[in-house]
Amino acid sequence: MPMSSKRPGRRPGASSTRDDILASARKLFAVNGIDKTSIRAIATEAGVDPALIHHYFGTKLDLFRAVVQLPVDPSVVLQPLREVPIDQLGVTIPRLIVTLWDSELGANVLAVFRAALTGADDGLVRAFFREVLVDIIAERVDNPVGSGVLRAEFVISQMSGILVTRYIMRIEPLASLTVDQITATVGPNIQRYLTGELTGLTQ
Amino acid sequence: MPMSSKRPGRRPGASSTRDDILASARKLFAVNGIDKTSIRAIATEAGVDPALIHHYFGTKLDLFRAVVQLPVDPSVVLQPLREVPIDQLGVTIPRLIVTLWDSELGANVLAVFRAALTGADDGLVRAFFREVLVDIIAERVDNPVGSGVLRAEFVISQMSGILVTRYIMRIEPLASLTVDQITATVGPNIQRYLTGELTGLTQ
Repeated sequence: MPMSSKRPGRRPGASSTRDDILASARKLFAVNGIDKTSIRAIATEAGVDPALIHHYFGTKLDLFRAVVQLPVDPSVVLQPLREVPIDQLGVTIPRLIVTLWDSELGANVLAVFRAALTGADDGLVRAFFREVLVDIIAERVDNPVGSGVLRAEFVISQMSGILVTRYIMRIEPLASLTVDQITATVGPNIQRYLTGELTGLTQ
Repeated sequence: MPMSSKRPGRRPGASSTRDDILASARKLFAVNGIDKTSIRAIATEAGVDPALIHHYFGTKLDLFRAVVQLPVDPSVVLQPLREVPIDQLGVTIPRLIVTLWDSELGANVLAVFRAALTGADDGLVRAFFREVLVDIIAERVDNPVGSGVLRAEFVISQMSGILVTRYIMRIEPLASLTVDQITATVGPNIQRYLTGELTGLTQ
């Protein structure tokens, strides 16, 4: 797929308004998270009509995606996480995510992640992890009740570590393993975080 | 322990030479790694006598520690990793490392790690992971022969992920767990990387 600078919904002369909206959204998402930031609040911050935000960007998650320059809709990409049997989540998560990171879209994710690690956009990436990824997974594995969020966070710790070692530090031979090899190796560990008995957390 | 700016071996007027040595060491460690960088090569690069480096800094690992401003000797801190039974490594690694990161020394480690993630000092941290941490662990768990390095790298992926989620992104409640809770939760997963059958890697 060739690179393209075309943006749907963009009109000549409208770039300043778009940029104002993006700047306001970036600020509010970072401070308050996705859930607690309304389109109305962003519109007020940017000094525009809420309808204009919907016109330019679509839904709130679409706007978030634009803010972090994510070229895919996270809720679509992550849909399998809602659908596979729970005992398959352990292998589904690394297969899905490592495939995404290995793809040409991965560079954007890496850029956002790097920015978060250096302090910039810290709130944005936390918001993404907490409200997009954690929420999808946590409610599916909340057994015993109340354990779901921590289970999901340990999964994120393992996946963040793969991101750091494979894509940022590029330590070999890990960086050259196939998606299948990564999946077979980390999958059972992720499954334990999701459905294993984590005695250390309940004591 | 109170903070102190005293440095053993430092003499008035010698700071420029010290800085030259540190700059040369930093450059060569980053490019060639620790093993392949000799004190002699650093001395040549800095335009000083090798004996002066030993006088100011001690051993090559002491010099590396000074370069990354690590206030502890990694080979001393990591000594338990050489001594505990192999089936105890899984819990020993997170207990040792998370305790270190939680301590007042942890801030330095975090600073070095952050620098690595942003691109600066990338080689230095990779050198540390590969030649200090991987080498200690890999040779102990090299079963079947040749699997040790990858086993160690997956351990590093999990520990890097704890560092990112607990200390950099500070996602809660994970960031507020005790060392014991982290250890009990990630320990068995790390043990699997070290001594489990990783069929994905041998196929």
